[in-house]
Amino acid sequence: MMAEGSKIRIAILGASGYTGAELVRILLTHPSAEIAVLTGNTQAGQSFYSVFPQFAYAKGLPTLTKHEEHDWKDVDCVFCCLPHATTQDIIKALPQHLKVIDLSADFRLKDVNTYAEWYGGEHRAPELQKEAVYGLVELHRDAIKGARLLANPGCYPTAAQLPLIPLVKAGLVLPEDIIIDAKSGATGAGRAPKQGTLFCEIADGIHAYGVASHRHAPEIEQGLSEACGRAVTLNFTPHLMPMSRGILETMYVRLAPGATVEGAKKVLEEQYAGEHFVTVLPGKEVPQTRHVRGSNHVFMNVFADRVAGRAIVICAIDNLCKGASGQAVQNMNVMFGLPEHTAIDFAPVFP
Amino acid sequence: MMAEGSKIRIAILGASGYTGAELVRILLTHPSAEIAVLTGNTQAGQSFYSVFPQFAYAKGLPTLTKHEEHDWKDVDCVFCCLPHATTQDIIKALPQHLKVIDLSADFRLKDVNTYAEWYGGEHRAPELQKEAVYGLVELHRDAIKGARLLANPGCYPTAAQLPLIPLVKAGLVLPEDIIIDAKSGATGAGRAPKQGTLFCEIADGIHAYGVASHRHAPEIEQGLSEACGRAVTLNFTPHLMPMSRGILETMYVRLAPGATVEGAKKVLEEQYAGEHFVTVLPGKEVPQTRHVRGSNHVFMNVFADRVAGRAIVICAIDNLCKGASGQAVQNMNVMFGLPEHTAIDFAPVFP
Amino acid sequence: MMAEGSKIRIAILGASGYTGAELVRILLTHPSAEIAVLTGNTQAGQSFYSVFPQFAYAKGLPTLTKHEEHDWKDVDCVFCCLPHATTQDIIKALPQHLKVIDLSADFRLKDVNTYAEWYGGEHRAPELQKEAVYGLVELHRDAIKGARLLANPGCYPTAAQLPLIPLVKAGLVLPEDIIIDAKSGATGAGRAPKQGTLFCEIADGIHAYGVASHRHAPEIEQGLSEACGRAVTLNFTPHLMPMSRGILETMYVRLAPGATVEGAKKVLEEQYAGEHFVTVLPGKEVPQTRHVRGSNHVFMNVFADRVAGRAIVICAIDNLCKGASGQAVQNMNVMFGLPEHTAIDFAPVFP
Amino acid sequence: MMAEGSKIRIAILGASGYTGAELVRILLTHPSAEIAVLTGNTQAGQSFYSVFPQFAYAKGLPTLTKHEEHDWKDVDCVFCCLPHATTQDIIKALPQHLKVIDLSADFRLKDVNTYAEWYGGEHRAPELQKEAVYGLVELHRDAIKGARLLANPGCYPTAAQLPLIPLVKAGLVLPEDIIIDAKSGATGAGRAPKQGTLFCEIADGIHAYGVASHRHAPEIEQGLSEACGRAVTLNFTPHLMPMSRGILETMYVRLAPGATVEGAKKVLEEQYAGEHFVTVLPGKEVPQTRHVRGSNHVFMNVFADRVAGRAIVICAIDNLCKGASGQAVQNMNVMFGLPEHTAIDFAPVFP
Repeated sequence: MMAEGSKIRIAILGASGYTGAELVRILLTHPSAEIAVLTGNTQAGQSFYSVFPQFAYAKGLPTLTKHEEHDWKDVDCVFCCLPHATTQDIIKALPQHLKVIDLSADFRLKDVNTYAEWYGGEHRAPELQKEAVYGLVELHRDAIKGARLLANPGCYPTAAQLPLIPLVKAGLVLPEDIIIDAKSGATGAGRAPKQGTLFCEIADGIHAYGVASHRHAPEIEQGLSEACGRAVTLNFTPHLMPMSRGILETMYVRLAPGATVEGAKKVLEEQYAGEHFVTVLPGKEVPQTRHVRGSNHVFMNVFADRVAGRAIVICAIDNLCKGASGQAVQNMNVMFGLPEHTAIDFAPVFP
Repeated sequence: MMAEGSKIRIAILGASGYTGAELVRILLTHPSAEIAVLTGNTQAGQSFYSVFPQFAYAKGLPTLTKHEEHDWKDVDCVFCCLPHATTQDIIKALPQHLKVIDLSADFRLKDVNTYAEWYGGEHRAPELQKEAVYGLVELHRDAIKGARLLANPGCYPTAAQLPLIPLVKAGLVLPEDIIIDAKSGATGAGRAPKQGTLFCEIADGIHAYGVASHRHAPEIEQGLSEACGRAVTLNFTPHLMPMSRGILETMYVRLAPGATVEGAKKVLEEQYAGEHFVTVLPGKEVPQTRHVRGSNHVFMNVFADRVAGRAIVICAIDNLCKGASGQAVQNMNVMFGLPEHTAIDFAPVFP
Repeated sequence: MMAEGSKIRIAILGASGYTGAELVRILLTHPSAEIAVLTGNTQAGQSFYSVFPQFAYAKGLPTLTKHEEHDWKDVDCVFCCLPHATTQDIIKALPQHLKVIDLSADFRLKDVNTYAEWYGGEHRAPELQKEAVYGLVELHRDAIKGARLLANPGCYPTAAQLPLIPLVKAGLVLPEDIIIDAKSGATGAGRAPKQGTLFCEIADGIHAYGVASHRHAPEIEQGLSEACGRAVTLNFTPHLMPMSRGILETMYVRLAPGATVEGAKKVLEEQYAGEHFVTVLPGKEVPQTRHVRGSNHVFMNVFADRVAGRAIVICAIDNLCKGASGQAVQNMNVMFGLPEHTAIDFAPVFP
Repeated sequence: MMAEGSKIRIAILGASGYTGAELVRILLTHPSAEIAVLTGNTQAGQSFYSVFPQFAYAKGLPTLTKHEEHDWKDVDCVFCCLPHATTQDIIKALPQHLKVIDLSADFRLKDVNTYAEWYGGEHRAPELQKEAVYGLVELHRDAIKGARLLANPGCYPTAAQLPLIPLVKAGLVLPEDIIIDAKSGATGAGRAPKQGTLFCEIADGIHAYGVASHRHAPEIEQGLSEACGRAVTLNFTPHLMPMSRGILETMYVRLAPGATVEGAKKVLEEQYAGEHFVTVLPGKEVPQTRHVRGSNHVFMNVFADRVAGRAIVICAIDNLCKGASGQAVQNMNVMFGLPEHTAIDFAPVFP
């Protein structure tokens, strides 16, 4: 689709947040892509390194502009890192030749009523919602290949669905009794200044937030409902951690009658046998967020519970990478027919 | 019992670990106690501040000695901070005039077979085991008053039992379906050098450990079994956090038919209405470990789950203080007839 | 001065910041003081625990009010934790029966021209400036006893002046060649939401700030100039650390001809021999911020440099406690004729 | 030199430490290298991912072996990550066809007497010492091209020499009056279990160590002495930081008569104008360790001091990458005639 030797010209809308910076980090080394446009409406006119000094060494990054300034003729692919709700209108106004990868929540929920209920307002682009493809790559690769508008999954839903969908689909885990205790690094809360995410408020402690009311619950439920063919309601309890990157989800599940932990683990091993970015850990090795930090990798494992009939599923990802920008580039690679691991096949940074 | 104006003469066995240092921190300001003996067999002969430099300012702390050197005549109360298993023999050998507060696990489990199963060896002082009183102060105050040998509760069991025992006892929570997702600071792992607790292995990440095999599970089950009158098996999954102090337990419970979240919260509020160290937070305020850091306080709350019939109970303590040394001094105060809050009524250190 | 048995009635202006919370933490256990007024103009009407949840357990704290609401008749002592510049006018308007301890910078610099140069505006209460006593307790105790308006020293200046003033005064250190490399925890940056103090911007890294332009330089220079009788200009370079509390200052000094490291250390030992809160560490023990954390203690030491004629002076304090609120209460104790260590004689919290 | 299409076969000796893991992280994506041998004598027989679980996803990494087991015929290049002193004998015994990159200190000091003085023993391979090339790539590139035995620079010396050598060489900075205040992450202390590097001993605080006695001082002095043609003695004071990666060096220097800060900055800009990995930051932007984390980049800048005639030079690197394994691969690329940035041209990981 791309002319031989030509590069995909990329625009990143809302590049002044952490997911924008992570996209730049990845795309700087992408052999088939070039960053053509970076927008950040409140910081328009500034160099990108003045907003993210880690890029002081990178020559040739475009200056931040307002998205209204562009006619998008010289752009092939847009990554949209804007807040939910504002995103719909902006994407609706983009020309059709663009492939769009949306990192907000605006096109993730297929049911616009569910969207309205959880995100506090009517969906203003329901026709685009129908077109959008949900981009959990390892499970929806074929649909992604033909997508024009891609809804990049949420960070928590990525770590929950990758292990749970195969288990629920195989009938080994009862969808009625799922508890997800999630722990996330503070990048998930964004870069806007808030008292609650100051260093001194986050360091050296942990607390739950959004108890029984976090917006990622319906996204996970949507995936599991599709997998088992009936409506799923589950417990999802996120916690804020004194670390920048990483999500760990400890999922407490009830096995179906006759199902075993070994059987559950085998289902995951078979599902992900050929997947470069998903590793079912050997033996009783526990997934640790620090072991996937800075990478697009997913580590998971299944453990027996002492309580008969129960199992514990644990999954670790980097919320900014596989949980956001890494998966977004993975989706781009699939959408443009490139090798899927291009530019995201770097190793975790540990320690 | 103590002569007017005289002070309780204290010995701390195994003072070179974190719980020993926390006892010294607290007892330095206790108006009715004086630290007479500090033992640390591998560091005998060293000044205490050379082992814990934060005490460089404290005049008059005894030099570390070997516990074999003492005849205990001039001591009234022993805090034992030695590792489990070694503790039994040492306590057995102590003279009977001493009140003993044991911070190890050796006298916590009333059933010596359970002890043998979880701690890997026959109990060698079963007769003392019978005498030992389990010191969860707010729930066992009367028994503690007459105790000579006190088993100080484990850190995780303290944060689990304080909210769960009243709920199970009142019949509001089903003991068959309890899941405890616990998160602990690294002081819980002790001060002995291990690769797994190096800064670079703990910082900036989280992982579960002891999945379905942690020794604090039977201690919690013992307390809940007593509360409801039948054997309880539960899920207990601890995680290691990049922080020094603090335990947060997020407990997923199923309500008994007819029970409500409001009713559960009311039971806790009534149980702890007169308790200085236990606070049921108002409204939907979430307990945070950093808000009890460095203190003997317990913060807890109960939340509705989106899943019908379920509730979420959250409890935060400082594992070194209320979860170990603070509660140990609280027990000492009760055992010696002193005002219970003496020397432990300091505020949390936040930030 | 206070009636027998009566308590000093305290008002804390600007109590919603970290120094306000630290004052509350300390004063809650003060036997001769009671917190009568807490102001926080933007949060007036809220309970204090809703602003600082660590105080959820504390009964009887006053609700936050606006400072304009008070006539101060029932108050004896005001701690002012407001930002510099706004402070002058507010203090000027307070009635004369109040003793005032100002934690801002407004009354620290005796030369109002220096104030105007560094703080960007004319001083609007120069007559009060003359009255104000600078409260570095260990060095100015006598003047503090009679003070009505006390200027509480800055955090960095406290850690710099306590070791350097005696050395410069004794003529052992040349005031012309002093370099102070300072490292501070993030509480020093306050609780107002700013991008630069978000967890993700501070964690896991270090950087200098205010290079050759930090406002605490003239405050340190004022103290040293007084000590040696001539104008001092020095290098002061602060760094922001991924920790909440603590200041470490590594000071590179040139010894006067004939002076020795041993002599310098002896001067400090003699200066602080009777001081409970200042410890000159034995041998080559290095001061660590974590060993004074949460306390009013100061640890310092002097080291030989490999470069002939130079020495290294290191000092550690807790910036919120000895560097702000702890020293403020120490000053209050002196001003009201109470034992100086009342309510601040707690041990450091390590780990 | 390498046959067309063939790959450099790599052995990493002492691969079970942090620098070993960092080499594997980098070399996994090197298109012209393959990891053939990983040794770790105490963990021989174990899979590499059991020692470093972040590599659980990496297929085909060799199992850890003992270095005595190999005859090195199928190896082209050895990275030696063993402790100093043990390294000499092992490298001496390696066959001559191997190119050797030594990350220890054993071949860095050209004067074997200086080595003996600082490292506590006679050098046992002085003839190899003469052959060894010191690999500070940006300053010694030509010599490195022909090297067989390369001494990879120390982490602190890399961050000190890159800015200071050009300034001293140009005569703008007086070598007699240099003070280096260095701050390092805890990976610099290695992975061997020690009480002093436990999480709880490092978190939430800072302290100096090796005051006036750190072994990297003579290495820096060697570089500066060569640059100015006379013996240099300087102050070097390292501090241990609560972070895993990163070194910040704040260097306090005296300018030569007539020299200016602008002139000094210009010298650095010209020196590093064509260097991909060294960036002199624009304006007053301060180098931050977090902005080079996980990368081979060096950020530096020069600032005016308030003290006349003085300047402040600040430099930030990732101690594990540019300060160790990244620079080692950069050296390998030069030694094997490959594009210098191969496999190390990844962006910093921030946050």
